[in-house]
Amino acid sequence: MTARPPLQPGATLGIVGGGQLGRMIALAAAPYGLKVHIFAPDADSPAFDVSSERTVAAYDDVAALARFAASVDVVTYEFENIPAEAAEALAAKAPLHPNAAALATTQDRLTEKRFINDLGIETAPFRAVDTPEDLTRALAEIGRPAVLKTRRFGYDGKGQRMIRAEGDADAAAILADFNGAPCILEGFVPFEAEVSVVAARGADGAFAAYDPCANEHRDHILAVTRVPAPGIAPQTEAAAIGIARRIAEALDYVGVLAVEMFLVPQADGPARVVVNEIAPRVHNSGHWTIEGATASQFDQHVRAVCGWPLGDPSRIGGMAVAMHNLIGDDVEAWATILARPGAHLHLYGKGEARPGRKMGHVTELLPKT
Amino acid sequence: MTARPPLQPGATLGIVGGGQLGRMIALAAAPYGLKVHIFAPDADSPAFDVSSERTVAAYDDVAALARFAASVDVVTYEFENIPAEAAEALAAKAPLHPNAAALATTQDRLTEKRFINDLGIETAPFRAVDTPEDLTRALAEIGRPAVLKTRRFGYDGKGQRMIRAEGDADAAAILADFNGAPCILEGFVPFEAEVSVVAARGADGAFAAYDPCANEHRDHILAVTRVPAPGIAPQTEAAAIGIARRIAEALDYVGVLAVEMFLVPQADGPARVVVNEIAPRVHNSGHWTIEGATASQFDQHVRAVCGWPLGDPSRIGGMAVAMHNLIGDDVEAWATILARPGAHLHLYGKGEARPGRKMGHVTELLPKT
Repeated sequence: MTARPPLQPGATLGIVGGGQLGRMIALAAAPYGLKVHIFAPDADSPAFDVSSERTVAAYDDVAALARFAASVDVVTYEFENIPAEAAEALAAKAPLHPNAAALATTQDRLTEKRFINDLGIETAPFRAVDTPEDLTRALAEIGRPAVLKTRRFGYDGKGQRMIRAEGDADAAAILADFNGAPCILEGFVPFEAEVSVVAARGADGAFAAYDPCANEHRDHILAVTRVPAPGIAPQTEAAAIGIARRIAEALDYVGVLAVEMFLVPQADGPARVVVNEIAPRVHNSGHWTIEGATASQFDQHVRAVCGWPLGDPSRIGGMAVAMHNLIGDDVEAWATILARPGAHLHLYGKGEARPGRKMGHVTELLPKT
Repeated sequence: MTARPPLQPGATLGIVGGGQLGRMIALAAAPYGLKVHIFAPDADSPAFDVSSERTVAAYDDVAALARFAASVDVVTYEFENIPAEAAEALAAKAPLHPNAAALATTQDRLTEKRFINDLGIETAPFRAVDTPEDLTRALAEIGRPAVLKTRRFGYDGKGQRMIRAEGDADAAAILADFNGAPCILEGFVPFEAEVSVVAARGADGAFAAYDPCANEHRDHILAVTRVPAPGIAPQTEAAAIGIARRIAEALDYVGVLAVEMFLVPQADGPARVVVNEIAPRVHNSGHWTIEGATASQFDQHVRAVCGWPLGDPSRIGGMAVAMHNLIGDDVEAWATILARPGAHLHLYGKGEARPGRKMGHVTELLPKT
């Protein structure tokens, strides 16, 4: 699409995806006087509860996508696994932010890692794996432990397998579990911390990053985010933000993105930054910004996709912030959390608290140390 | 209704009224995992855009009110001019918070002032006025200037007339403009500042007040709120909060209320507090709490009406806050406000920017002085 003038209040923001991220984007759009139209396949989608218009249809229903896009002023999305044909159908009818290139680059782990390396940015060592022979060769070259992942549609540890010792299983048996899906083998990175940079890029090319945050995972699912990242050196922070900026600029990105990174300790200086993956969307590790920053990641995303100036990403009063996810039956503690002074409870309006399901999160601002 | 257990996430909050206050209550309810059902007569109501269920019906449609209340877990409202029969219809089918007594007391200026005086709290001098003879006698007793107001259904200066000099007009002519509506004459209060106390009372009797804020009106409409109130003495703050608490307790109130007060300078000590009026609902002078306090007035209201513990009303980082209303075509400055660092823009999603119409507001947190 050609460049368009900024949206006016009263315009309609279309969001593909009806989960908690779409819900929180919709909640951020409302104070700007925007209407929101959610496109999602599940009639019980949490984001429907806070939107003015709803389309229930499958993500590969190209006709429904086209009707949806034609009815809104701009389209964005809450997840990167939008098929290329769907992205085309959307972009033909409305501005799509972030753009289709960002989707294509980030929804395939192989394409993504090559793109990052081409920018001169380090990733884990990796090899494409389509056959048992590929896997045997890749293991020989990269070493163990290593992780075999599907190139597409993986999240929260789904679609991946750690390969540890020699003789863990033979290559053909391992690959059989992946049902012929194209895969990638990723080498081990001896990291001391996982951080992410959540940042926004505006339609005018302006760039605004939040302070890098430290992330702790449990069972491959984000459990805790802390900002500022404990013990991170200023040079490492600057390097991490610089990497996010180069990625955003190379994609001609408009909206919020998150870049997950490993910090690898160095004997003779600040930690080395190795990129793990890019999320072309608002991100769980940015939820702390709702209360912790002047403009939240959801505000920034709305501002960016509407063609408006970005807001201020600085932390409120310079305070430290901690965000804990409520996974599965963690959510049963809601009443206790409600009674805790200063705890900000966020529940996503999901029905059943299945194991591993993100049901909500809690944010606490901590006095400046 | 008898006392009920606290609501569970996933429950439905019913809100009578579909304007900006209902909209902001709905936006605050979502992060608690609640669904919202809005009842409003106008199909274009701003609150509909952020609610999961909508009823379009008149406020005197008792059958529609009863169906609405039967479909939700608790009912609240965004304005006090709910007819007694409507309140009865609602309360018969669901817990109604704040209660019907709060509505009955505050929707009639005469009843309200008598209630306040009965608590030993000062108001402007007042007299009931139903006939020209009443008005003549009231003016002789109270003096001029004085303000004649309808007892019911006035807001933002509507339904009132200032009576200044002798011979301004004769009593019969003045009263003719009020079409026989029961009136009240209020005497002049020589105030130095207008403040309000926005506070919450929980179902358990807990009470939590925000810091009193100073309000500036233009053309009878709130223009600016500042907190802390400039120059207010600590004793005056404590007195103002104590008054709000006594009012809330006397009404067995559950939810957020606002008490508007005049500060009258005294030669020999801190200012005297004179109550102007009570709003049994979230209030425009509490909008600063969305960004300025740990728990906003909308959070507190949702917590209270759900039977949950109140949140923390303290100001974030002790910062000062200023809130400016966007009235009528003030809203045309939206793009400029969006570009101002640290300004939080709130637009209410209303169509036409008619003169005197509240279209949005802007909040700014100021460094601690």
